Parts: sequence; structure tokens; C-alpha cells
Amino acid sequence: MSHPALLTVGVLGGLGPEATLDFFSKVLEHTPAARDQDHLHLLIDNNPQVPNRNEAVAGTGPSPGPMLAEMAAGLEMAGADFLVMPCNAAHAYKAEVRAAAPRTPFVSIIAETVEATLERVPNLEVAGVLAASGCLDAGLYRQAFGSRGVQTVEPEGARREHFMALLYRIKSGDKGAEVCAGMQALSAELVLEGAQAVIAGCTEVPLVLGHEDLEVPLVNSTDALVNATIAYASGDRPLPERP
Amino acid sequence: MSHPALLTVGVLGGLGPEATLDFFSKVLEHTPAARDQDHLHLLIDNNPQVPNRNEAVAGTGPSPGPMLAEMAAGLEMAGADFLVMPCNAAHAYKAEVRAAAPRTPFVSIIAETVEATLERVPNLEVAGVLAASGCLDAGLYRQAFGSRGVQTVEPEGARREHFMALLYRIKSGDKGAEVCAGMQALSAELVLEGAQAVIAGCTEVPLVLGHEDLEVPLVNSTDALVNATIAYASGDRPLPERP
Repeated sequence: MSHPALLTVGVLGGLGPEATLDFFSKVLEHTPAARDQDHLHLLIDNNPQVPNRNEAVAGTGPSPGPMLAEMAAGLEMAGADFLVMPCNAAHAYKAEVRAAAPRTPFVSIIAETVEATLERVPNLEVAGVLAASGCLDAGLYRQAFGSRGVQTVEPEGARREHFMALLYRIKSGDKGAEVCAGMQALSAELVLEGAQAVIAGCTEVPLVLGHEDLEVPLVNSTDALVNATIAYASGDRPLPERP
Repeated sequence: MSHPALLTVGVLGGLGPEATLDFFSKVLEHTPAARDQDHLHLLIDNNPQVPNRNEAVAGTGPSPGPMLAEMAAGLEMAGADFLVMPCNAAHAYKAEVRAAAPRTPFVSIIAETVEATLERVPNLEVAGVLAASGCLDAGLYRQAFGSRGVQTVEPEGARREHFMALLYRIKSGDKGAEVCAGMQALSAELVLEGAQAVIAGCTEVPLVLGHEDLEVPLVNSTDALVNATIAYASGDRPLPERP
């Protein structure tokens, strides 16, 4: 078996590193392969030194844009055929990534997750979004779903603070029962507010929340990006046009 | 907490991809970190299209040397401060990697595993080596242990063929009970032949064999490389001199 058509995937990673590891692991798991050479060529820049995305969107920390741009340029130079970034909030800086790698299509986790949600729930009216403050403040899912006529409900106020506290516990390695229960409670609130599907719109969320924890479909943004990555790299789906 | 001294690690990966994932996962697990920014910057070229190392050493397939050299040069250009390669057999092509990245120290999994074994069993006389045919044929552990006055015992003949069959099953995703039992039996044979420690000298072996499966110490080459990588990157240990 030979794969002349397999494309090389550039990964803007380390945002955080656990999410990149999860993405890498799932790409391997879902790629049909009988031997090493059937797997995808991934160029992973796992750079955890990128400034905090949520603090940057809130205006309390430096922008991750310049470092993400540098990573994108490096991956383009190293031969990536398209770029992915397994971090939802970092997509607030998508324009800088695109500008720094002008020849290389960028596959958005936000756009792929919205498509995956609409495939799963075709008559969707309200989507619940479990995402970090940077992703919510930048309106990434609100705008992407809005352009498809879908409203969003999101954790607000104290609930958003609770979400962020859970998120930082996951990032520090805590995936224990209390964190899982907290995430489950937050998703249940969104369902009470009318969500017909819940988006795990932060790559750390699926590390502690599973399909079995919810009454409505849970759409995992990492899975959506994994499936899209394999489909684009193997030529099963044409790459998105440059905007 | 700021880490001006953290070095960037270049990873020649994809040999196979599961072993690279295991390496990445263990680096994250063993790095002391409370937040993303405490983790290491890893540039991972996960390139599973590198020709089969064992066929190449046996003279039945093309050399992986040129592709490994290209990867090393790319990682050096991308800013790696030192290089690692989580694949034992590929170290038969170490000279080509070093020549292609002349400014960048290369940390050998073979050398680090020998040191880790001698730390663990200081009076070691005989080491058992569970490794792929390419690694054994190239004499990588035999020479490295020999220079420290340690003899090696290795699977020969039908046992080596059995090892290779198990290895390709692991690479195709089979980590079931039969594969684990087969690997355990092969390691027990080496102990019967006098091994006072057994080297998991192929990055796939630790995926199916644990410390609890053996009567003598099992030294995991992936763990030895992980510990060395973290120590070098964090400045706890000075990088090896260029030869």
C-alpha cells in the first residue's frame, strides 16, 4: 500500500500540551493503518510557552498572536500542507496565523465543530457551548453558529468562573471525580437553558466529560478536528479555500 | 515562574508513531508543571513514511538515512536545541542524523539506556536485550554495553523471529494478552541465559511489558530517554559533547 496523496499536517500545539497529546493520540487511533507507513506525517510544534489565550482576550495579558504567527510560518517553511490548532480559544488569533502562513490552508476547529454539530443534529436551534472565557468573550462559537441560524447558550457569571477554575485544574493534571462532576453539572445547566446539543468547545473538556454524562448529544471539538484532519490529509475531503 | 533556561527539544518521530506518542505522553507526565507554560517546547516531526529500519539493516529495503537526515536538518533549522529519536533501531543511522544537524547535540537512546541500566544494577555483568532485528544486527546495545565491560544476551534464531512477529502486531495496534504473554516468555528466556537486567530496547516493547512481568530489573529505553530529555532541557544535566 502506498500513499502518494497523503498530505503533511502542521499542528500549532502546546495550547495546552495535554490537548495536543489527546489530538495526536486520536489521530493515530482513527487513522486506518496496518503498519507505520500508513500513518499521517504530522509536524507538531508543541509550544506551551505561548501566552495564555484567555488572559489575552480579557486584556490582562500579552497577545499570543506573534508567537502563533511564528509557529505557523515555521510549519509552512517545514513543509506542512495545511495547518490545524487543537485549541478553541486560540482561534481568536486565527487572522494572525493565516497572515503568517499565506500559502497554507488553515483548518478551523470552530468551523469543523459547527459542521459536525449540524450533521449530528440537523434541525438544531440552540447549541450549548462549554468553552473557556477567551473563546466565549471573542464570540467564536456565537458567530459561527449565528451564521448558520443557530443560537448559543454559554456559562455566564459565576458559572463561567467555575468553568475556568475546573479548566485550570485539568491543565494542572487533575482529572478527578470532583472535576468531572463539576463539568457535568455545568453542561446540565446548559441543557436546562434549552441546549439541544452541547459543544465541548475547549480541548480540555473532553478529558473529563463523556457522551454518557449528558442527555443531549455532546460534540467534542477535538474529535471534530481529528476527523477533519484525517479526511483532508487522506484526500477524502477537499481542503477549504483560502478566505 | 519563568523558564528562560528551558531548551527546545527536536524529536525525530513516527518510528513508529505509537512510540512517539508514548514518548510525548511520558514527557508531559514527568515534567513538573502547574500550568501550560511550565511544560517543554517540543518540535515533533512525526514522519511514519521513513523506510523500515529493520529491513534496511538486513539489506532488504531502502535506507532510512536520507529521510532521517532531512528531518534532523529541518528540526535544527526550526530551532531545536538538541535532538532525540524515540526508536532504538534507527540509531544504526545516527551518523547520518548527526552529519545533517552539525550544530545540534544528539541525545542517544542507546547511550542513555546503558547509563540508566548501570545506575540501576551497578555490578552488571550480563544484560538481556529485547530489541528489533535492525537494532541487534547493527550491534547497537552489544557495542554500547561492551565498551562498559558488560556482555549481552539477545533473542536468536526462532526467538528473534517470534520477537519480530510480536513487534509488527504491536505496530498494527494489537496489545492483547497473547502479545503480552509472548513478550514475557521471550524476556524470561533471557533471564534463564544469565541476564541480570532486561533492556526493553525497542520503543514498542514497553507498550506490552511491565516491571511486574520480570524477576530482574526491566529497563525501559523510552523512560531512559524521557528522563534524559527532561534533565537536559531543564538544565539539570549538561548536554553531551559532540563526538
